[in-house]
Formats: sequence, structure tokens, C-alpha cells
Amino acid sequence: MGMWDKEQYVREGKPSFLDERRHTQVGRSVPRIDAPAKAKGEALYTDDMTLPGMVYGKIKRCTEYAHAKIKKIDYSKALELPGVLAVLTGDEAPNKWGIVPQSANETALAVDKVRFWGEGVAAVAAVDEETAEAALDLIEVEYEPLPVLLDPFESMARADEVLIHEDRPGNILHEGVQVYGDVDKAFEECAYVIEREFKTNYPQQAFLEPHTSLASYDPQSGKLTVWSSTQVPHYLHRQLSIVLEMPMSKIRVILPAVGGGFGGKGEASSADFCAALLSRKIGRPVKITFERQEVFMTNKGRHPCYMKLKVGVDKDGYIKAVDFENILDKGAYAGWGIVVLFYTASMIHLPYKVPNARFRGKSVFTNKPSTGAMRGLGGVQPRFAMECILDELAEMMGMSPYELKMKNAVESGYTAINNMYVPHSEYKKCLQVAVEKSGYLEKHGKLPFGKGIGLAGGYYISGTAYTLYQSYRPHTTVLIRVDTEGGVTVHCAAADIGQGCNTVIAQMAAEALGVHYEDVHVISGDTETGTFDLGSFASRVTYATGAAIKEAAEQINQKIKEVAAGILGCRADQLAIKDRKIYSIYEPKFNMDWEKAVRAVVNTVGSLVGIGHFTPARRKGIDLITGNRVQGANIGHSPTFGFSCQVHEVEVDVETGRVYVKKVTEAGDMGTPVNPMSAEGQVEGSIIFNMGAALYENMLVDETGRILNPNLHDYKVPTVMEMPEMNTNIVESYDPTAPFGVKETGEGAVQPTFPAIANAIYDAIGVRFYEVPITPEKVLKALKEKREKETGCGCSPK
Amino acid sequence: MGMWDKEQYVREGKPSFLDERRHTQVGRSVPRIDAPAKAKGEALYTDDMTLPGMVYGKIKRCTEYAHAKIKKIDYSKALELPGVLAVLTGDEAPNKWGIVPQSANETALAVDKVRFWGEGVAAVAAVDEETAEAALDLIEVEYEPLPVLLDPFESMARADEVLIHEDRPGNILHEGVQVYGDVDKAFEECAYVIEREFKTNYPQQAFLEPHTSLASYDPQSGKLTVWSSTQVPHYLHRQLSIVLEMPMSKIRVILPAVGGGFGGKGEASSADFCAALLSRKIGRPVKITFERQEVFMTNKGRHPCYMKLKVGVDKDGYIKAVDFENILDKGAYAGWGIVVLFYTASMIHLPYKVPNARFRGKSVFTNKPSTGAMRGLGGVQPRFAMECILDELAEMMGMSPYELKMKNAVESGYTAINNMYVPHSEYKKCLQVAVEKSGYLEKHGKLPFGKGIGLAGGYYISGTAYTLYQSYRPHTTVLIRVDTEGGVTVHCAAADIGQGCNTVIAQMAAEALGVHYEDVHVISGDTETGTFDLGSFASRVTYATGAAIKEAAEQINQKIKEVAAGILGCRADQLAIKDRKIYSIYEPKFNMDWEKAVRAVVNTVGSLVGIGHFTPARRKGIDLITGNRVQGANIGHSPTFGFSCQVHEVEVDVETGRVYVKKVTEAGDMGTPVNPMSAEGQVEGSIIFNMGAALYENMLVDETGRILNPNLHDYKVPTVMEMPEMNTNIVESYDPTAPFGVKETGEGAVQPTFPAIANAIYDAIGVRFYEVPITPEKVLKALKEKREKETGCGCSPK
Repeated sequence: MGMWDKEQYVREGKPSFLDERRHTQVGRSVPRIDAPAKAKGEALYTDDMTLPGMVYGKIKRCTEYAHAKIKKIDYSKALELPGVLAVLTGDEAPNKWGIVPQSANETALAVDKVRFWGEGVAAVAAVDEETAEAALDLIEVEYEPLPVLLDPFESMARADEVLIHEDRPGNILHEGVQVYGDVDKAFEECAYVIEREFKTNYPQQAFLEPHTSLASYDPQSGKLTVWSSTQVPHYLHRQLSIVLEMPMSKIRVILPAVGGGFGGKGEASSADFCAALLSRKIGRPVKITFERQEVFMTNKGRHPCYMKLKVGVDKDGYIKAVDFENILDKGAYAGWGIVVLFYTASMIHLPYKVPNARFRGKSVFTNKPSTGAMRGLGGVQPRFAMECILDELAEMMGMSPYELKMKNAVESGYTAINNMYVPHSEYKKCLQVAVEKSGYLEKHGKLPFGKGIGLAGGYYISGTAYTLYQSYRPHTTVLIRVDTEGGVTVHCAAADIGQGCNTVIAQMAAEALGVHYEDVHVISGDTETGTFDLGSFASRVTYATGAAIKEAAEQINQKIKEVAAGILGCRADQLAIKDRKIYSIYEPKFNMDWEKAVRAVVNTVGSLVGIGHFTPARRKGIDLITGNRVQGANIGHSPTFGFSCQVHEVEVDVETGRVYVKKVTEAGDMGTPVNPMSAEGQVEGSIIFNMGAALYENMLVDETGRILNPNLHDYKVPTVMEMPEMNTNIVESYDPTAPFGVKETGEGAVQPTFPAIANAIYDAIGVRFYEVPITPEKVLKALKEKREKETGCGCSPK
Repeated sequence: MGMWDKEQYVREGKPSFLDERRHTQVGRSVPRIDAPAKAKGEALYTDDMTLPGMVYGKIKRCTEYAHAKIKKIDYSKALELPGVLAVLTGDEAPNKWGIVPQSANETALAVDKVRFWGEGVAAVAAVDEETAEAALDLIEVEYEPLPVLLDPFESMARADEVLIHEDRPGNILHEGVQVYGDVDKAFEECAYVIEREFKTNYPQQAFLEPHTSLASYDPQSGKLTVWSSTQVPHYLHRQLSIVLEMPMSKIRVILPAVGGGFGGKGEASSADFCAALLSRKIGRPVKITFERQEVFMTNKGRHPCYMKLKVGVDKDGYIKAVDFENILDKGAYAGWGIVVLFYTASMIHLPYKVPNARFRGKSVFTNKPSTGAMRGLGGVQPRFAMECILDELAEMMGMSPYELKMKNAVESGYTAINNMYVPHSEYKKCLQVAVEKSGYLEKHGKLPFGKGIGLAGGYYISGTAYTLYQSYRPHTTVLIRVDTEGGVTVHCAAADIGQGCNTVIAQMAAEALGVHYEDVHVISGDTETGTFDLGSFASRVTYATGAAIKEAAEQINQKIKEVAAGILGCRADQLAIKDRKIYSIYEPKFNMDWEKAVRAVVNTVGSLVGIGHFTPARRKGIDLITGNRVQGANIGHSPTFGFSCQVHEVEVDVETGRVYVKKVTEAGDMGTPVNPMSAEGQVEGSIIFNMGAALYENMLVDETGRILNPNLHDYKVPTVMEMPEMNTNIVESYDPTAPFGVKETGEGAVQPTFPAIANAIYDAIGVRFYEVPITPEKVLKALKEKREKETGCGCSPK
């Protein structure tokens, strides 16, 4: 800090280093709080925990059928095995749970029938894992097989004959129609129209830590404590209350270190329920950790989508109409299903201006492990379709895809026709930066055969307007405590699942209080010691927690300023707190140590405490559950949106059909990056995540419903060998409506990856792919067809 | 609750079930929150903990000398032993710590010289305990012996020749004189005066769990976490900051389950410092758990006192003057010493009215393990002297001791001449009840030889007016959170060391909020997740936490009432909350569920949070440190006082000299007993605790300073075989100045035990003992002397 210049003040007002937007803690690349323990192997994951008297649980799964009635379960032999303490079956806990209460249809274990291959039918608690495993083999289950429906179209077609859920006619979880404007008329007026069908795959999050849950029920107090690897301690808390028929006040959910989630831990798992139920049954702590195969069996990965997209533009390239049809493969249970269906509907409205739009969609049950929430939920599939079609339209018009997208890109203050409001957008800057840094314009269409470059954009929400159970309660509460010891403790209930939110929270709290990141201790991931938070999903944590932190910190700052004002002899509203000092904004040389002021406050009135809440605004729109247009409910609405643009450069090996992504240039509008180092990690992770799904990842299911590759050997994820050169750019951005100007980053950057790769492959070999993953087999087949078409015969040119 | 009667309301006002004093949660004997885990062996004590990468620490102790210069420490061979990671010596952490900052003179390990037998000179960290033990033997220490001073009088006499601490001339930690009124003149006017010398023993708390500390320092963030078996997480936090030269904001102290303290864990221990220093040195977690012998070696038990007490009464038996001299044996280091010195001075002012009083006292260093805080600190020794002398005075006057004590007993609203104020006292009722229930008046002086009955009273503080570091900050802060889940979480930093405060806190919070004890979760014993509390000592927790709880709860209740008022259609100030319902005080049939109202509040504004502080009032009096009379500081002053009276019935085996306590009748004024079952346990424990010290317990030190009985085999504590018949009575009492009317109970009830037993022995065999423990040897010797005196010869009568 330079000395303050009185002349300058008269000229310019408050010295710039005291500007609220001049951050010192936010925007700083600091090592993550959780890094040392994780690097040293000292981080405590749920499976690392052992409680006195703890025993082990295992789940008996149906691996004979993907759809069958349970006629009889005989576990008498299992109970006789020495070391076995209890066996649990589904009829002991028939209450249905689901993160969206209106479609809750899952049970802790199958009741009456199994609906997918690998569904749990019984659970065992035993003194060790070996005994529990052995007991599973002694449980005899008698099934009556039912027809297996694996394809959503077949599922709808045969619904008269086979219903997966009795209460869901047509095997349809939900369907919806949304129409804005006069779509048909608009299409008539278009100069260019393209309609294509797209299909996406059935991938899995492939987080490193399997689902694991340790439950301890105390029979005397009737209290249950559950340590779980979850993204949503609060929703897990609710579901446990429903399934165990216990008041929430008697349940505590604690989050130890979590080894990734990416949406796959965004619902409760049967490990949670079975561990809790078994613990209550035997009065001892029970731990259940899934085998990798069980993670695949219970899945909750991305919905395969069967999409038909039609886009029309006028002669200048302005989008006039979009017509979108989407059939989602829900798998066996509802989970997040309704939300995903309508998110795909919302996602066609941005990041381009769409004046007329129609959506028709159905989410359809099949006898496969359920799909669920997965990084960029509801956005990835329609984004693939939209960005590929725009590429094709641009080519049709003889225009650069970049130009077409720039023309239509949304800007700050845009309100979409479905009433989604974008307070701030630097999307155009993202397009510009990615194109400039990659040399896209110089390379596109000009690279030798086999090499190609592709461009795509994307965006994502920064939280939602809803609790899933339709309450108006704040989504986040943060409590900050400051004490004489000079320490700052932030009590929140955020879930650090490896994304690094505890570090970002410490930075934001430090910024808001004018102290240093190193001074802040974050208490999170606990429904009892924490305050309140909905969980880590929908890229909501940084924004929501940041807003609550600001409110809480303001209360503390006010008290400190009042006392400091007395000491410094000036008005409290003329003080600013920055870098552990309290300054007069007019005479910054009049200042005092923050810690000294804190001591003065604490010694007279005691520990300083501030409490802040965040309640997102709601906008008129579409009801989450019914799809009807209503006041105060807009699915897809978010306090703000992050944007991203990616340029992928690929090489296609025409001999093997293998696609290599060689270089990715990314530009992201993530608002203020709280921890740029960590944000860049998020972006790089996002790209690799969906590069894997674009090229390799797919769960393969045989005709009986069995998964053929339920392990990380056969299910291929990118390794360090597949890592492309990365050039990620954080675009300068500050959303003035957001706390500290923040936006999401971990989900927006997965959106452009599918279409950027597909567009690059087209640029390389002249073949458009409308289906992911784009495997070597598909590439070879397409090349062969292309040659046949070009040469007019089925033989290769000699 | 009966139906409300309108007539009755007109007649009597608010229905009685809504009275604030009509408690439903406070005063209820509930099972302790910590009981199930402890009963099942599932409670996690510090030594039960293991962290990844954790290693073990051991302390090398000087067992050659009780006083010696350290010439040289060579630990090169220890470092060469495979598995040894580090050796620590005192010069690496020379900062002096002490719970009273002005007399801080202890170091983590001895620097330059050792001052008692068993003092630590080095510490080792190694991969396992066996290796650490082996390494200790490889550390070579060269000493130069110094004269050993074991007796405080010899210590003062030889101070010119030998100083234990260079900065403490005369080997005196502190001395003080306090004079109130004209003592000499008052004695002249007395009808009866007795002066006697008393001596008390050198006992140890003998808690079951040895000191243990697990420290984990993270080199990257520079943060230290210490799990410790301590009564004073906050003071330990401060001392760690001093010794390790780290800001308090970088240190977190956590209290796992604690297996008793009784004052012995009321200071930091060398286990804490050595574990922390070693962990910082090697960057791995280090655990140190003391052997039982080390607990005795480091002691911190009760000060042996050499007291001269003179008491004068007028012809009617009213006390006119007290002259008290006390020499305290401090052992090697200061610790709580100054506090104990002046507490013994304060303790002669109650529970009897003393119009003129003089105190002269010195706390003297010796080469023995330090004395410290022990249950009933500073009260037990003067109480022994006072209650024995009053017994003797009564006999001299031909009056019953009961009558004499009733005449002089303090009543509510009494202000002692040293300005100690007693807001409320049911001491007379205690005397009455104990005497009536025991049949004291019928038995005293009338039992056959060898059987006797003795009466004594006592009292104790319920907290203090001070922080030991002379700050005006609140002593306790409590934060209460209420959420839609219907759960109540109390964040406090109280230390549950086995006394059951977490249960009592849950009950008080439930009472204050009008909910049920079972609804409340208590988060305590953690300097980070908690709020603030000074610790568990001076019987302060129930009162201080109760007061803070009331303030915090009031804020929450206010918000709930405001919303409920809207729903019920009445004024908020006309509502009362009781038993999870909100009632109109005028029309209790107009009521609503508490949880429903909470949901209404939370759903609109978010989690409900209240914060309460407790700052005790101060009174003009004697300064803690200088002993000078000052404004705003009265050592011994307390918000209120608990009282107790005990009648002990003994049998003396004249053949063996052994004393058997056969029956104890106790009556206690503990204000409102929050958990009567638990309070009765405290009283019974108090009696047994000091019965042991009265009859058996004493650390024996040979002429070199070595402790001869540093284990629970040779140091005898009472077992279930020595347990007398107990008749404890909770006297009806409600201190209107106290939260929920509460007072202390766990320390007042230890006060009468020494003198009640001594008085009973006199009643049994006609011999007065002025020294504890009253061992069989002493009894036999006294009986022999008595016979010699009676028969006039040294031989037994044939």
C-alpha cells in the first residue's frame, strides 16, 4: 500500500486500495486447505474410520435378472453362520425415498421385485467382511423373471404388457411440453433450417472413492449418526428420516473427506440406508463400502438421450426458432429424473438468443441401473445437439461458426423467452479469446485431412431457485465467529467433496472480514456442527455461501467498526477493513490493527458472531414438477450463469479410427475466480471428464440387462496418456449482482466438449457424428461409408 | 397439564404450569448423554485415537535427583536407534508457562536444572512405544546435584544457601496479609478463644485416565491441532501459544472423552507441550500418554498446609474474631499457587459470620512435584481447621456444635467483612436437615467408646469473578441454533470431563427454549467448533453456561413468539413456550406446536440463532495477584455459593487403630439440582473423595525427594469395600439471582468431610486429630498417649 495522497482523495474519492472490488483474498491462488492431509495420505475418508464395536455390512444383489418378482427370501442359513449378526430385507423398510419428493419411488432394498441387474435384495451385518461375503452366498432368493425392457422406445411400446412401476403408466416417469412464441410460423420465415437426431451415451462418473457409509445408532438416546461419502448431507438427512421413520432431529450426518462425486453422490445410496437400518437393528456401528462393481451397478450416471433438434436462422444467421424433442432413458428409478427432463428443456434457451422455442420430452423407465445427476446435469446432451447443428448451419451459409455464434450470443441483462434472466455475460469474450488464442479462424477448414479444429460454447447455472421439496427457506446459512484469539471460524454446512469449496469459503470469509485467508477455519459438512446448506450440486456452493458470508461478515464488521470508531475518533461508516487493519477511508493513515479492535469488542461484549442467509430470487416460469407455467418458479433459473468456449484440435488416425485430442483452448467466464489455481483445475478436469465420455466411456449392457464393463479396467476413462495440451483462459469478468462477482466454473466447462470434438472431427475427416462416444469402430465405419459414397462403390480405391 | 380455568386466571393470573420457575427439563433425573458410549466402551478417549502417520512420544525423566543442575544432555545414541524420529530438550522451548500469567515459571521440559524428582529433561518421538522407551535409556544426562528442600520451613530457612527459582527470593512464591476490622481488640473482648495448629496432607486426584495428548502439526498451513485430556481447553490453548510461539488462531484444542480431572487436569501438562513440539519438529502426529507413575511424578494435587487458626467467640457463642496463618507447600512450580494462597484466606469468611479477621500466608517452593488445583481448591484445608475448632469451642462452652454453627450461619443477602456477597443461602437448612436425618443430637456424646458422630459444614463458590489473565471478557459464550429439522444445537466450549455438564447443558437449553432435553445436541470441548468458555474448574460451568443459555434462548424465543403471535392472533409478549408448545398465557387453549412455528420462521428467514454471554459481576475486594484491596476484584467472590453439611458416624477399631466411616448423612444447598441423579452422584463422589484423603491418601516422599508410592497399588484410595452407608439430601433451594436457580455441588460437598470425620473420631475415642490423614498408626499412638495420660503411666492397664 502506498501512502495516501490527500490531493488524490479530493480528486478521486476513496483510495483505490480500499475499494470493495479490490480483492486481496479472493482471486488469490492459495494451496487448498485439504491438500496437505490428502497429499500425505492422512485425510480420513469414511472407509478409513473404525468405531469401537463396529461391524461390516454387505449387500446381496440380484445378478440373475434385470426384472423379476421376488417370490421368497430365505436367510436362515446366513443367520446360522457364526459371526453374522443380522440380515435385513426390503420389507423391513418399505418407505419410498427420492431426492425429488413427488417422484420418490426407491426403497432401501428391493421390495417385491427387482428392476435392474444388481439391485440389492438383502443386507448382512457381520463381524468382518469375509463373513459378511460368505453370508451373502447363503441367502436363497427365489425369483419369477419378468420381461426386460432396456430401450426407452421399447419400454413405451410394451408398457401395456410390462410395467416397471405399477403407478407409472406407459413406463413414463414424466413428460412435458413447453412452447414459447409461434415456433411453426417462425420456421416458415427462416432462410435456413436444419433438423438432426442425436443420441448420447450411458457413462458413469468414475469418482475414485466408492460409496461408503458408516452408521452408528445409539439405542438409549435413539440417535443415529451417519458418516457418508455424499454431496448432499442435508438431502441424505431427509431421506434417512423418511426411510427409518425417525425425526430429523435424531439424525446427524457427517461428511468425512470425500473422494469425488460429480453428481454420483448427489442422492442417498443404498449403503447409507442399509448401514443405518442394520445399525439400528443390532445396536452397533455398521460400515458398508461398495466394491467398484457395486458403484457401476447402482450407477446414477448421465441419462442417455434420444434427441431430435431443429434450428432455423434467418438469412443473416440470427436464430429464429428451435424445436427440441428429447426422450431420456431414466433407468429403473426416478431420482433426479424430473429435474433432468426439464433442465434439458431450459438449456436450449441459452447462451444464444432464441425468440421462439418448443420442447417435447419424456423421461422413460427401463430395466437398467438408474441414471441421475452428473456434472453439467441436463446441459451436456442438448448442448451437443445445438452446437453441432449451429456448426452445420454456418457451413450451409458459408459463414464461420464463430461468426454465427457471436451474432447470437447473449449479453448481460438478457431475458430469455422462457423468462430466464442473465444478469451478466461475458460469453462473447469467451468466444473471442478461445478463437484468438487457438488460431481457430486461421486453421478451421484449412488443416490437412485427418487433422481438424472444432469450436463450441456452453454455459451453466450457478445454483437454482429451488429446494427440491418446494420450500421458501434460505438455501444456505453461514455463521461466522470471531474471537480474541484472532481466529475466524466459519460454520457452514457446505459439502467439500474434493472440489475445494472449504478453501474458497475461507478466502471469501477473509475477504469479507478484511483478514487473511490463513486466519480462517472452516467447519463444514456436518448437519449438527454446521449451519445449513442444501449441498454440493448445480454449481451452487460458491455463490450461495459467498452471499451468506457477506451478510454474516457485515454484522461482525459493523460491531468492530463501531468500537474502532470510538478509538480512532471518527464515524463508523467512514471506516473500511482490509488486510487485518481498520482504515479511515478519508485518512488511511488513521488506522488500527484489526485484532486489537476485535479484542476490544470481545473483552467487552464477548465473541463476535454474525449469521447470514442466502435465499435465491425466483422468477415467473415453469414449475419444476408439473412443467406448467407458474409465478415464482423457473426451472433452470439461476442467480447467474457461467459461460465457456472451447476449441479442440484433433487428429484422426484413419487406419485405426482412433481420435486423439491434441490441444484444447478454453476461455471461461467464471466471474471472479476465487482461487484461480483451483478454478483452472476445475476447467481442466471438466474437459478431460467429457473428453472421456465423448470418445470412450459407455456402460455396455447385454440383452439380459447385465453390465458388461462394471469396473475401471473395462470401462475406459482417460489417463494421463490421453491428456491433451491445455490452454485455459480465465476471461475478465465481474458479475455485480453476485457476491465478490463470482459465478460457477466446474460444470459450464463440461458443456462444449462433446460438440467441439465432434465439430473438430468433421473438420478433420468430413464426417459428422450425431452420437457419442465417437469410438474407433464408428469412425472406421463412417470413413468406409464416406469412401463408398465418394467413390460410388463398396471397394477401397487402390 | 390440566385444562385452563378462566376463573382461576382472573383469580390468580398466569396459569401455574406456565410459571418460569415451574421447570420440566431442569430438575429432571435423566440418563447422562455420555453414559451409553462409556458403558459400552465406545467412548473415544485421547489414547484411543490413532491418526495416519501417528508416532509415539515418551518423556525422559530425572529419577536420580530432586534438585540438580543439568550439565549436559547427550542424545546422539538415541537418535541412532532405528525408529527414533526426534529428540526434544528443554532449551528448544524455553518459554515459561503457567495458568496464572504473573507467576508463570514452568517450561515444557527442564531447562538448566531439575527441581523435583521425575521432572522431564527430554522427550522422544518414535514409531512405537517400545522404541521410544528404549531410546530414553540411550539418552545420557550429566547432573550436578543441589541441596534438596522438601519442607517449606526448611526451604525458607535455607533460602540464602539454596534458591529453587532464581527470581523468587526466600523460596517464596507469594505472601499476603489481609486484615479486616480490629482483630486484636475483638479477641480481647471474647469470652472463649481457642488457637490450634493444623497440618494437611499431600494427596493426589487419582483420576482414572492418565494425562494424554495427541498433537498434529501441519507444516503447510502451520496449524496445530491438539486432542488432550484437559479441564481447561482455553487455558491450554493460551499456554500452547506461549510455549510454541504460535498465534492462538493457528491452534485448535479438542477434548475427547475425559476420564476425570478433579483439578489435576486444570493446567496444561508436559504431555501437551512435548507432543505438540515433537509433532511440529517431525511434521507427523505424536501421541503421549502418561504411565500412572508419571501422573504421580507430575502431581498437581492438593497443597499441604501448615495452618495456625485462632477463633474467638463471645459468651453467647457468636464469632467475634478469626486469626489465620497458613504456610502452603507449593512444590517446585507456581501453577495455580497464588490463587490457592488467597482462596484459603477468603475461605475463612464463610459460611459463618466473621466480623473481624486477619490472614497471613505464604506459598513456599520445595523440591517436590508441584501442588495445584484439587476439588474444593483452597477450601478444604481451612475448613478442616475451622470446623474442628468450632467443635472444640462448643464443647468448651457446653453447647452443641450444631447450636454454635446455627447461631453463626450466614443467610441470604449476607455481605462478609471482606466484601464477599452471599445472594442466597440455605446453609441453616442444611445444618437442620443433616442433624435431623442423622439423629446427631440424640447420638452425639452418647455413643459407646469407639463409636462416634461428627458434624461439619462447608460451602464453595459457583465460579469466580476473574479470568486468570485479568480480562473483562465474558467467561462463557453460548450459541444456540434451531432449525426446521426440529433439532436444537448448543455450541459451547464447556469441558465435559466426566462431571456430566453436557447433559446439564442440554437440560438447561431445553428448559430455556421450552423443548425437551432429548431434542438438544450439545457441541462442546473444542476451541474451534465451540464458542468460548474458560473451562471446568471452580464449579463454574452450570451457572455460567446456564446464564449464557438463557440469554441466547431468549433471542430465539422472541423470534418464534413474533411469528407465532401472527398465527395465533395475539401479542408476542403474551406467549409462553413450554414442552414444545406455544401458549397464550391468558388462553392456554390457544396454542400451537413449537416445531410448526419454528418451521414458519426458518422457512422465511432461515436457521434461528441466538448468542448469549456470561460476565460475572465483580466486587470491590482483594486483588488476585497482589493481595491488595482494590476496586472490582474480589478473590473468592462468586456469583453465588453452594452449602453443605455432613454428619459422619465412625467406628474406631482400638486394636488396629483403623477408622471406619459407617454412615454419612449429607444435606446440600445446591440451588436447583439440574439433574438430581447426577448431582447425588457428585455429592457421594465428593464424600468418598475426601474420606480417602482424610484417612488413607498421602504421597510419601523420602529424604531424597523420591515418591515412595507413585502408583494405585501403594497409594491407597477408597474402594467399594470402604463405602459407607450414604444418606444424601438435596435441600429445597432456589437462588433467584441464578439462572434456573442453580448453584455448585461438586466441590462444596468435599469441604465438610475432613472435619466431620475428625470430630466423629473425637466423639468416639476422645482424641482430637489436627493432621490428616488420620492413619491407624496415628490413632494407635494417640490412644496410647491418652491411656498414659489417664493412667499416669506408660504401661497399659492390666
